[in-house]
Amino acid sequence: MRNRYAFVGGNSGRWRIASLRPVRGEVLPHVRCVDVVPVDAMQSGRPAGWVLTGQISNVRYAKRAELTVLGAKQEALGRPRASRAALIPIKKSPEWWDLAQDERREIFEEQSRHTAIGLEYLPGVARQLYHCRDLGEPFDFLTWFEYAPEHADAFEHLVDRLRSTKEWAFVEREVDIRLELAV
Amino acid sequence: MRNRYAFVGGNSGRWRIASLRPVRGEVLPHVRCVDVVPVDAMQSGRPAGWVLTGQISNVRYAKRAELTVLGAKQEALGRPRASRAALIPIKKSPEWWDLAQDERREIFEEQSRHTAIGLEYLPGVARQLYHCRDLGEPFDFLTWFEYAPEHADAFEHLVDRLRSTKEWAFVEREVDIRLELAV
Repeated sequence: MRNRYAFVGGNSGRWRIASLRPVRGEVLPHVRCVDVVPVDAMQSGRPAGWVLTGQISNVRYAKRAELTVLGAKQEALGRPRASRAALIPIKKSPEWWDLAQDERREIFEEQSRHTAIGLEYLPGVARQLYHCRDLGEPFDFLTWFEYAPEHADAFEHLVDRLRSTKEWAFVEREVDIRLELAV
Repeated sequence: MRNRYAFVGGNSGRWRIASLRPVRGEVLPHVRCVDVVPVDAMQSGRPAGWVLTGQISNVRYAKRAELTVLGAKQEALGRPRASRAALIPIKKSPEWWDLAQDERREIFEEQSRHTAIGLEYLPGVARQLYHCRDLGEPFDFLTWFEYAPEHADAFEHLVDRLRSTKEWAFVEREVDIRLELAV
């Protein structure tokens, strides 16, 4: 399945878990490591504490002008110096999903400045969004970030700012998993 | 999987195929009937010529004012007099999916008047959209319509108008399947 990835929490993997904590709602079971694997390449029967699956998809809110600015400033995943990562699965409320497109956009950007805030932390923090609501998964999104240790404070700041927005009032489940490259 | 449905083309089913024809790109194999089944209730091993799967999801383009007008005028699927149906699977081009949200909305509604045109045919033609691009399916959408025989001409008119829009320039595969209740 093109662009579909599994986040496998278990005893081994490329990323070692530094912390795993609930932000809102039920937390995930504690495991030692996380691996990110294309679903097509996943071994069946691999032992795992949990598996979260997400799909890279088209943008839902960003306007062309925003995509142009983001494209000029953001960097890809997998940079050698980016030895820190965060996996933050998020589920929004039924009230969010019942909103019309213009209402969600208004809250997401005009009120919460989601894209604009993220832009301030580029290129230090690289990001990738995985969609999973329509896959019948327990979360709606898997948000993934990679950064070098010297950007760890900036990343905390980014996360704090987003969590204080109006958009986050619609988040009903969130788990915060911090990772370090297992070397 | 909540809100996920399979459209099963085979030798038996609730809907008898009156016609099945390509509009653009590769057609589907000819079968006699189509059944619409919640995926959770599907029998494994049921013989089928083809199975298309789609997910009812949140709206992607409609604004609140449009949803309000639609909600006041549209009727649900399954009306006793709606003995005709159409299943029109559609796949859009990579160029469409690479557009920003505001560019897609502009083409979809401001230029093509997709919602406004559909509104003119309510409540005669009942509609349901199923998303499948992120499910790894051969189409991006399964569009489904139900109407009584006296609205068949109006439905042809609706389909012709939508196919002449700018939005349809981004459709790279489309199959038109017309159905009648198997009585």
